[in-house]
Amino acid sequence: MYCPDQKGIIADVTQFIHKNNGNIIYIDQYVDRVHKSFFMRVVIESEFKKSSFDDFKYSFNTEIGEHYSLKCSFYLAENLPNMAVFVSKYDHCLYDILSQQRSGKLACKIPFILSNHEDLSFIAKQFDVPFYYIPVEKNDKDEAEKKQLKLLKSHKVDCIVLARYMQILSSKLLDAYPNRIINIHHSFLPAFPGAKPYHSAFERGVKIIGATSHYVTEELDAGPIIEQDIVRVTHEHEVDDFILKGQDLERIVLLRALKYHCDRKIMVYNNKTVIFN
Amino acid sequence: MYCPDQKGIIADVTQFIHKNNGNIIYIDQYVDRVHKSFFMRVVIESEFKKSSFDDFKYSFNTEIGEHYSLKCSFYLAENLPNMAVFVSKYDHCLYDILSQQRSGKLACKIPFILSNHEDLSFIAKQFDVPFYYIPVEKNDKDEAEKKQLKLLKSHKVDCIVLARYMQILSSKLLDAYPNRIINIHHSFLPAFPGAKPYHSAFERGVKIIGATSHYVTEELDAGPIIEQDIVRVTHEHEVDDFILKGQDLERIVLLRALKYHCDRKIMVYNNKTVIFN
Amino acid sequence: MYCPDQKGIIADVTQFIHKNNGNIIYIDQYVDRVHKSFFMRVVIESEFKKSSFDDFKYSFNTEIGEHYSLKCSFYLAENLPNMAVFVSKYDHCLYDILSQQRSGKLACKIPFILSNHEDLSFIAKQFDVPFYYIPVEKNDKDEAEKKQLKLLKSHKVDCIVLARYMQILSSKLLDAYPNRIINIHHSFLPAFPGAKPYHSAFERGVKIIGATSHYVTEELDAGPIIEQDIVRVTHEHEVDDFILKGQDLERIVLLRALKYHCDRKIMVYNNKTVIFN
Amino acid sequence: MYCPDQKGIIADVTQFIHKNNGNIIYIDQYVDRVHKSFFMRVVIESEFKKSSFDDFKYSFNTEIGEHYSLKCSFYLAENLPNMAVFVSKYDHCLYDILSQQRSGKLACKIPFILSNHEDLSFIAKQFDVPFYYIPVEKNDKDEAEKKQLKLLKSHKVDCIVLARYMQILSSKLLDAYPNRIINIHHSFLPAFPGAKPYHSAFERGVKIIGATSHYVTEELDAGPIIEQDIVRVTHEHEVDDFILKGQDLERIVLLRALKYHCDRKIMVYNNKTVIFN
Repeated sequence: MYCPDQKGIIADVTQFIHKNNGNIIYIDQYVDRVHKSFFMRVVIESEFKKSSFDDFKYSFNTEIGEHYSLKCSFYLAENLPNMAVFVSKYDHCLYDILSQQRSGKLACKIPFILSNHEDLSFIAKQFDVPFYYIPVEKNDKDEAEKKQLKLLKSHKVDCIVLARYMQILSSKLLDAYPNRIINIHHSFLPAFPGAKPYHSAFERGVKIIGATSHYVTEELDAGPIIEQDIVRVTHEHEVDDFILKGQDLERIVLLRALKYHCDRKIMVYNNKTVIFN
Repeated sequence: MYCPDQKGIIADVTQFIHKNNGNIIYIDQYVDRVHKSFFMRVVIESEFKKSSFDDFKYSFNTEIGEHYSLKCSFYLAENLPNMAVFVSKYDHCLYDILSQQRSGKLACKIPFILSNHEDLSFIAKQFDVPFYYIPVEKNDKDEAEKKQLKLLKSHKVDCIVLARYMQILSSKLLDAYPNRIINIHHSFLPAFPGAKPYHSAFERGVKIIGATSHYVTEELDAGPIIEQDIVRVTHEHEVDDFILKGQDLERIVLLRALKYHCDRKIMVYNNKTVIFN
Repeated sequence: MYCPDQKGIIADVTQFIHKNNGNIIYIDQYVDRVHKSFFMRVVIESEFKKSSFDDFKYSFNTEIGEHYSLKCSFYLAENLPNMAVFVSKYDHCLYDILSQQRSGKLACKIPFILSNHEDLSFIAKQFDVPFYYIPVEKNDKDEAEKKQLKLLKSHKVDCIVLARYMQILSSKLLDAYPNRIINIHHSFLPAFPGAKPYHSAFERGVKIIGATSHYVTEELDAGPIIEQDIVRVTHEHEVDDFILKGQDLERIVLLRALKYHCDRKIMVYNNKTVIFN
Repeated sequence: MYCPDQKGIIADVTQFIHKNNGNIIYIDQYVDRVHKSFFMRVVIESEFKKSSFDDFKYSFNTEIGEHYSLKCSFYLAENLPNMAVFVSKYDHCLYDILSQQRSGKLACKIPFILSNHEDLSFIAKQFDVPFYYIPVEKNDKDEAEKKQLKLLKSHKVDCIVLARYMQILSSKLLDAYPNRIINIHHSFLPAFPGAKPYHSAFERGVKIIGATSHYVTEELDAGPIIEQDIVRVTHEHEVDDFILKGQDLERIVLLRALKYHCDRKIMVYNNKTVIFN
């Protein structure tokens, strides 16, 4: 939840939960002093039935939310997000996502894998996940986009991960999933946005390379950053070494970002992320 | 503050502050579910006069503290801790402490430097800090200890930093400064406690070495850990390289620990530290 | 190759290669000054036929090796090591090994997966690798060991990875694969050897946890360390968080170690590793 | 030394040293396959007199250097570089440089400190190093530059460190010290070059900030990178936290770069650095 910063919010929220027989097992808040905004994440244990969950939301909004102009999202822990995976030809992120999800470490459902190439269909088969091949023609992206949107809708997809999907998404898709499309970019943003970042990093002679996971927005590689990490390189490493080392980073950074997202720990605000961890 | 975990604490505390015209500019809490303990750190802006600060403390303890069995410490931001520095012959940590304190980045006063050797007196002179040379005889440690305690008392010292002080402190000193003596140990504890950790690390063939800052307790190198960090080594590094790389770590890790301590961000509990950062 | 350190080795070796129409594409050496030992790794491009490779080895040993008491291993790049994977119930390392090997990033063949439990057989099936279930009885380990040795022999296994295999290997197995059995231990060795390291780390209140990959020797968790890495924890993390964060480390650290090993970049010496990277 | 890559160089160089009674205590080489260039760093123990050092250089260049078109620099270990320190108002890097040099960990001489402000003269006094105050007028930089060049010449300065010196150097100065002026930039280059990088990083919402030490060239913040490092930040950190955390990075990264430079471990080539470490 977030709202303009005001006195008394924490007291009122915690009292409300207390009064409604909720037990707070996690609470964290953050105040952006520049923009005078208040953010809070609360995890509650309670003996909700489905119906009482709706009651709880209603009472909360009426008694607390409106007073403070709070924008609040409510999730039941048992409802996992439904996450579609988009890939092209690289397999390292896909393998990680599928095996971590299968192990129960990535708390989501994966309704399907979508690709503009057929190369990775065998991995989908290995993990028994539906695979949709939707090629993207240079001159006619509309066709592909329509199919994508239809698929997403029919599977009631909540969010999308671009696991090294090498196509730029259309505005329509972005509009349908605001702050719910997660990309992994293979550089330490904002250094080296766009194509071939490892080649550019090599050319520049950097001593550290990075990977960045972010929400996708209209402007290329400029959306809210979720997670970044780096690895050292030396003059002895050639472009191919950058790529190999980088791929290990990519899968780690993307997985961390996906876990934050699926665990509902991220709030997006002002093109930045607030992550309660 | 900390106390047994109970419902309603946060609500009551924040309401009390709110009611007493305090503005919470930082609040963070932590619940240890195993031991059912509750910890909270609150930073308040208010227009206290000295007298009203005492009133505030009294009211808080009466109205809230007693009810919840809260143990609470109160500090005025303008009262810096008074920290004595103990050294032997290594200068790297001493230089860092003095220059960071002088720059205003380490929020404390340094009443004196104490050493069992005279080697570093010139640095004390450079920074215009009193230097006391108290040699420690193998057979008569009592003499030195008495002098130390007298000095600490006369300067109203709040806490002590052992900035590579190569003597083991007596129980009397430890008892006088519980959880207020900070040491830097040149290994990644609990690996390699005691003497010559870099040599042991080299012998073992580790690929990473570390440094650990902790509060000093009776048992050697077993007190509550405040901060640790590491640096990579390879087969090419000899013991001397370990020492050089390690010294850079030591000063960084010690400084971070001192900053947490001087900023009153640490609570000690169950031989561990809770650090609100 | 390694030998006692003497003047002129590099010159003689490089001249020999030069003379035999080899093109050195990688050369690195390391001198242990304490033990006066010399280590070198050389990668050569040449137009060998199988037969001439044997000639080359013979000439090298006769002309150079004997003179300097060089111990030298020769590998053809196209001959990948044959690596058996031992697992118990944890799947994270197994998934990583199989997917990285499948992607061509881990340069080895995997003849089979062996386990003392049946739980992970479905993963073997996913990746179409033979799975052998050899239970280990507390009172009769001999039986299992005999079966293991027979399997290893019949598949001409070169090396073994213990990908969270929760049994202690017998001396016979260790003797058959000296410095060729790679384990991942879930702590920053030598801290917390043996069972339940995450629990011990939590109890001690460390601020950093680690993972260590090493060659297995008779003494538990005391073999030559290949790779280590760490991740930060805070007072907010419980044992379960340590385990989750640790498992991400384990797979990364183990994979790095396996890549060094499979790329023949490791020399073991004096219970340490020399890694040319 | 470096030259176009050719067969037989290592053999010839090591044989030459061997023949001239030198004992190689360090040798490392690197081949840039793209540009077909060869780099080597060799450290020799020998019983040179001053005169025989000149002989050695002459013979080497005649017998080996010319044949291979080698560009080679020779240094006697006892001749420390003479390094001028330029500062403005920030003291953290200056303190580190002076105390590390005084401790013998930074192997150089410091003939003077130069500043466009008088603020830090007291530190120069603490460490008993000459301090020159040369203000830089917006409209007349020539005046300052002339004084600077005169000072540098009269003190026979070998290299310059810009320890948070907030002025852009003139071409004349750059031309006089090619690849011998070391700067510390407070961002992870090439992200956030120019002014106020911490503010830009905060604005962008990055999760990691960095510092970069590089040789100064005509193009702002685009010279050969020597060393970089990073530190994590979260949404809770404000610009001031970025600055504080960053300053700790700056001094560490700059010191590492200075040590590489003073130990003659860096070769500059193609706007990149080859660092033998």
